[in-house]
Amino acid sequence: MPQWNQATIVGVGLIGGSIGLAMRARGLAKSIVGVGRNQESLVDAKRVGAIDRSTTDIAGGVKSADLVVVCAPVDKIVGLVQEIDRHCPAGTIVTDAGSTKSEIAAALDQGLTNARFVGGHPLAGGAKAGPKHADACLFVDRTVVLTPTRRTDAAAAEAVEDLWTALGATVVWMKPKEHDEALAFTSHLPHWAAAAVAATTPEKWLPLTSTGWADTTRIAGGDAALWRQIFTSNRGHVLKALDKFEKVLAALREALEAENDAKLEKLLNDGKNRRDAVGN
Amino acid sequence: MPQWNQATIVGVGLIGGSIGLAMRARGLAKSIVGVGRNQESLVDAKRVGAIDRSTTDIAGGVKSADLVVVCAPVDKIVGLVQEIDRHCPAGTIVTDAGSTKSEIAAALDQGLTNARFVGGHPLAGGAKAGPKHADACLFVDRTVVLTPTRRTDAAAAEAVEDLWTALGATVVWMKPKEHDEALAFTSHLPHWAAAAVAATTPEKWLPLTSTGWADTTRIAGGDAALWRQIFTSNRGHVLKALDKFEKVLAALREALEAENDAKLEKLLNDGKNRRDAVGN
Repeated sequence: MPQWNQATIVGVGLIGGSIGLAMRARGLAKSIVGVGRNQESLVDAKRVGAIDRSTTDIAGGVKSADLVVVCAPVDKIVGLVQEIDRHCPAGTIVTDAGSTKSEIAAALDQGLTNARFVGGHPLAGGAKAGPKHADACLFVDRTVVLTPTRRTDAAAAEAVEDLWTALGATVVWMKPKEHDEALAFTSHLPHWAAAAVAATTPEKWLPLTSTGWADTTRIAGGDAALWRQIFTSNRGHVLKALDKFEKVLAALREALEAENDAKLEKLLNDGKNRRDAVGN
Repeated sequence: MPQWNQATIVGVGLIGGSIGLAMRARGLAKSIVGVGRNQESLVDAKRVGAIDRSTTDIAGGVKSADLVVVCAPVDKIVGLVQEIDRHCPAGTIVTDAGSTKSEIAAALDQGLTNARFVGGHPLAGGAKAGPKHADACLFVDRTVVLTPTRRTDAAAAEAVEDLWTALGATVVWMKPKEHDEALAFTSHLPHWAAAAVAATTPEKWLPLTSTGWADTTRIAGGDAALWRQIFTSNRGHVLKALDKFEKVLAALREALEAENDAKLEKLLNDGKNRRDAVGN
């Protein structure tokens, strides 16, 4: 028997579409409703089987929902959850997939009437955006961070944990601030460096790039407006990560300039050791 | 009829092994000899079919060769080619796969007796090293840079071009210095940034990395000693690329600190546009 009567996904891009597809594949909801502003994405999401029906009307989309998952750009999430709260039944569990958590937690920790909100962030993605690339296994063996606070309803947090576990993910609970500090290093810094390497490469030399350049800069192809918002909403932690990054770069440069081969090799090995620890 | 009587590959790692495998698959040589110091690599190269026979004796390995391909660390190539020159037949074509070209060209442009040397660099590689991962199609649709100088034998340069073309690659000719300037941006800078991102990431947060971090830092898993040599042998151009990289990083940071969203988004789009121009 499905755990959820109606799950509503607000924002049916790659992540939202994959959640819908994964829930349907596992029979977790009687019906899945997609809410979006972009008619094309809604049509694609329905065509790939990620949702049962779609609407551009958020009030109508959530009025019978017992679960709402918000998969929107980070600077839209607070407003959307507040709007959902005005129209959803009392006790509806609302969670999100936003890339930063402190701002959202601070804004939504109080003042909601109907929604029981649980902050979340699936550490998953793909090179290609949009529901056309939705994948029912996108979250299998991936990590999902949940960021409940002291005010978060404990039963709601557990229900959201159960949802992600059912989709194949491993759930870890962190404080919103701790999440944002970690992701500044593990997600935001790599994007920053990738964008900078790509922007530094003279156009005339692009034909001489190979797999190394392609791998290193891949995420720089992501939506610049979305990433700008992520950096802005995590400014303090990103700046701290950049401080550390710039120190490492300075040490590398100093070793190269001083022809200190042993030091240079040691620094390169520091990077190699962390890379090898992650694998793949 | 095979074009080459005996091709000798000095250094049968991923690149050397793949050249052997690709030449054998296309019937380009009557016999292929592998020369190396590492007995295990030679055994592996023979097992995967990259070479017909192997030796640790370079003199014996090249004494009947009409083609020698040197696939060794950049700081070993000059010495190896000079040694090959003392033992190979007059007119033997010798080329290399070194990642930097100016130092090698300067050292080998004069003083060779028997060998006709042509500098080369296949822009190809793989995440896994060693002849076990050799791939007969590693060079298909890839770019190979040849760096003949005014003193390079023209017929030898054309023969090396024909070899790479037969292996599926597109050959471009560049001056050694121009190659090194370009590769500082397209290969050495990405490695530098990848190593720095990996080294900057606190170990305790490594479990929170995802595909973005994995892609961006992948090449940091490469051999630190080999990369140290590449950076050292291209120090001047690498430092110039780093100057430009650090300016881009400074502009990004300034936009983030100043909360200049439009500027930050514009800079991120500069990176996205170059990344999108390359594709994949």
